[in-house]
Amino acid sequence: MSDSLLPGAISDLVAAFSALPGIGAKTARRLAFHLVDAPPEKSRQLHRALSRLDTELAHCPTCGFFSRPGEACVLCASNRRRTGQLCVVGRIQDVLAIEEAGVFHGRYHVLGGYISPLNQVFPEDLRLVSLQERVEAERITEVILAFDAVSDADYTAHYLLELLPRTVRVHRIAAGIPFGGELEYTDGITLSHAFTLKRELPH
Amino acid sequence: MSDSLLPGAISDLVAAFSALPGIGAKTARRLAFHLVDAPPEKSRQLHRALSRLDTELAHCPTCGFFSRPGEACVLCASNRRRTGQLCVVGRIQDVLAIEEAGVFHGRYHVLGGYISPLNQVFPEDLRLVSLQERVEAERITEVILAFDAVSDADYTAHYLLELLPRTVRVHRIAAGIPFGGELEYTDGITLSHAFTLKRELPH
Repeated sequence: MSDSLLPGAISDLVAAFSALPGIGAKTARRLAFHLVDAPPEKSRQLHRALSRLDTELAHCPTCGFFSRPGEACVLCASNRRRTGQLCVVGRIQDVLAIEEAGVFHGRYHVLGGYISPLNQVFPEDLRLVSLQERVEAERITEVILAFDAVSDADYTAHYLLELLPRTVRVHRIAAGIPFGGELEYTDGITLSHAFTLKRELPH
Repeated sequence: MSDSLLPGAISDLVAAFSALPGIGAKTARRLAFHLVDAPPEKSRQLHRALSRLDTELAHCPTCGFFSRPGEACVLCASNRRRTGQLCVVGRIQDVLAIEEAGVFHGRYHVLGGYISPLNQVFPEDLRLVSLQERVEAERITEVILAFDAVSDADYTAHYLLELLPRTVRVHRIAAGIPFGGELEYTDGITLSHAFTLKRELPH
């Protein structure tokens, strides 16, 4: 690329955008150039938001969701969430997806990823100790694993099954044909899950 | 979206990313969350680069390319570029694309867009007066319009043809089938250009 023709102030911005996941060289350039020509408020908005990351954002000490430093997150702080059940997810995005679907009304626990030795993610890198502590302290009777349908998640699910007391029921959300999915265009592994998890219909 | 569950520090960052062109709500969230979990140096790099935009970046007073404030751009400052010819482009990205292809070795003039009344871009919004001045001052004998193959660019080309002195030869780069393009998958307007601009082969 000919970014060497650009003054440092703009080539550094292109480089910073390029370092973000899923942003290629051309997109990085488009974003940076856009900010130069846009009203200054637009780049200042991004600048201000970045300034606040270090000082105004933390992970909830209970569940791992985003919170203000030293505070519980809105979900843990709310007294309108059902207790006794815990929905365990890999990432914070997953909480948002589930909240958007409106399919769960209890509290969450965000592991911070899945166990993945190949990617150097080991059990001690995840929020597992605090999960054990919560299960006891909050008298959890049911844990729902809302995990991606990927092999690291499968492994993590097995690991959690060993870790959690036998008295706690552990569910994992179903894998199968997605809504609107057609068999003809469904991959073999999904089909295999769908057959394995088949259920009898009442008649 | 359930971004209302997020603390202001992160939802503002999601909003700032969403305001960028081509960045949807999910991508904005992915970028913002990535910066939270990435080493702090990554968000600081972006933060620093944004800080410098206001104070360390300007448009070259001669050609409109990026430069440091009060300085000519590297292309105008270079004494290795051919003189007498001027390549006129719409946007700064176009200069980079042409430099990457290595197909032109003279100086550029960046209009800053194309005339587009529908989008409220009028001749006085573009670097047209300075183009006229340069053509005279730099004794330009040939202008090459390296424009996109879109109708606003066609109109701008016609406008420039009227504006520039008759003594200056004005070329526009060819429109036609792109390299590797197959007729079967080429749209009708491109095919029409390719037929209109057909040239006789020597034999």
